[in-house]
Amino acid sequence: MGEFELLERIRARLVETGAGAGAGLLLGSGDDAAITVPRGAAATSVDAFVEGVHFRRATSALAAVGRKALAASLSDLAAMGAEPGEAYVVLGIPEDLDEAGCLEILDGLAAAAAEWGTALAGGDVSRASTLFIALTVVGYAGTPELLIRRQGARPGDVVAVTGELGGAAAGLLLLEREQLSAALPAETGAMLRARQREPEPRLAAGAALARAGATAMIDISDGLGGDAAQLATASGVRLELDLARLPVQEGVRAVAAAAGLDWIDLAAGGGEDYELLACLPEDRLEPASVAVAAAGSRLTAIGHVSDGEGLALRDASGAARSVTGYDQLRPASAGPA
Amino acid sequence: MGEFELLERIRARLVETGAGAGAGLLLGSGDDAAITVPRGAAATSVDAFVEGVHFRRATSALAAVGRKALAASLSDLAAMGAEPGEAYVVLGIPEDLDEAGCLEILDGLAAAAAEWGTALAGGDVSRASTLFIALTVVGYAGTPELLIRRQGARPGDVVAVTGELGGAAAGLLLLEREQLSAALPAETGAMLRARQREPEPRLAAGAALARAGATAMIDISDGLGGDAAQLATASGVRLELDLARLPVQEGVRAVAAAAGLDWIDLAAGGGEDYELLACLPEDRLEPASVAVAAAGSRLTAIGHVSDGEGLALRDASGAARSVTGYDQLRPASAGPA
Repeated sequence: MGEFELLERIRARLVETGAGAGAGLLLGSGDDAAITVPRGAAATSVDAFVEGVHFRRATSALAAVGRKALAASLSDLAAMGAEPGEAYVVLGIPEDLDEAGCLEILDGLAAAAAEWGTALAGGDVSRASTLFIALTVVGYAGTPELLIRRQGARPGDVVAVTGELGGAAAGLLLLEREQLSAALPAETGAMLRARQREPEPRLAAGAALARAGATAMIDISDGLGGDAAQLATASGVRLELDLARLPVQEGVRAVAAAAGLDWIDLAAGGGEDYELLACLPEDRLEPASVAVAAAGSRLTAIGHVSDGEGLALRDASGAARSVTGYDQLRPASAGPA
Repeated sequence: MGEFELLERIRARLVETGAGAGAGLLLGSGDDAAITVPRGAAATSVDAFVEGVHFRRATSALAAVGRKALAASLSDLAAMGAEPGEAYVVLGIPEDLDEAGCLEILDGLAAAAAEWGTALAGGDVSRASTLFIALTVVGYAGTPELLIRRQGARPGDVVAVTGELGGAAAGLLLLEREQLSAALPAETGAMLRARQREPEPRLAAGAALARAGATAMIDISDGLGGDAAQLATASGVRLELDLARLPVQEGVRAVAAAAGLDWIDLAAGGGEDYELLACLPEDRLEPASVAVAAAGSRLTAIGHVSDGEGLALRDASGAARSVTGYDQLRPASAGPA
């Protein structure tokens, strides 16, 4: 199957599913470029997903790989408070992936795009020795000021986080070590595994936080600790977080105990929760919490911003502690999920 | 070297060189997304460049690979008549490519971006088993109507091409078979090799053609024959081209003769010339020629649009003929340049 033929079939599939259409999109896949009429300010993010680094075909269905790649990309738009617009896909196709496999990835992407209000507007395919997906997502806001950056946090701001933490890391542990499932109810285990396999970009919560006056925001893709440190550096401030206040997902403590790990490392060091970390003036916390609840999530204050630099984490006793990245806790042979 | 460290060094390099700045760019690399304030209508194109498929490190310097990747991407914007705005880069990095190598690719990209008025606005890096570059480029025009699509050609239109054809294919032959160089002056050989290694996106000519009233346009990346057929299909018309009128680059006939090939296959079947093929109402040919000349290129009428479908190629005697894609002429072992 040649590149042209595959692109033709992908286009046909996009027309069938309606995934190749969107509000601001005038011309999608099939020309030299897609044409859009952008509104206000645009936020654009690119991400790579490479087999053996970000996923394994042995443990993930191809449609799920496509879905998760788009979720992770759109999470960057959620972290800006942007409304999603278009997505562009580059697919690197190894010899052992046939046309059906390519279309399965595309179907996962297309279904996710439809779910999250994003048009698949263009793409390219190439032979490659590794399977990879490179995604570009574009989102919009009325003005540049409504797009929330990592810089902008001010001393005195409250630090808050959406949703619940640690679920994706606990889910990964359950997928890698089946015997851990005995430690918790089957339903809780299923929920944690889904958290790992089918992350949700917090688009509505991000937009709500932007409108509610967030001063800085980042998505938690690499773990709360690492991402909070990134935000602190970008803003030139110090973030002081109380680990006892973290909204830990149900079952995370049980999985950590069964695995002989500290639950704090899963909740604050585990990546892929794709929740949002936001800084807000103290008087904006209450209205922001209401707005985030209306967006189907919840907002938990977990600390504050002070003068200085870097990140300070304190446990329930008030003692300083560091967090071990979950990647470092896992056996090196485990590889990506 | 970790992903974070490399991204930090890439950002520092972009600040140093000024490549990470542009007119509509408010926030570049280093946040969850880049922020732009788009003007009018946007044209967005994505392209993959994979080692072993699109280039070989054995025969191309890394900076040249970066430069050529951006040239090929921007050529898609030229084919829309768009003014370049931003570029986004995803780099897949194999184990045998060190930090210096990554920065060399980036330097090639950054220098080319500066040359062609494009801001490198964001990117991502990942480990990968193959070296790959995925590029997203965004360009702008005042209104969607000023972006020229492949569809839109009308019976009676003149078909015209910018610049000169066959040079990139002849240059590739010279790079692959050194003994062919004896067939032509050293200077001509050097020019042809440069045509293959350092293509130029015809941005100014594309914008001139759009303003002059082109009804349809495509860039010649896969060979005049293949790309003209694509335009004909998209527009639902027939393109009738006189091969005798093709503007063939100096030295192409000599290289073809020395290689035992037909020069027409190099000029009409050889890809990577990155010239533009445009359709125009007959009364727009003269002003368009003047505008393209002012943009530093030249415009040659090579045929016309008629009712029907597909592509008709005629040689000097008026006989119909087909063109062999240059890829099919080359020894299979040669691989990409």
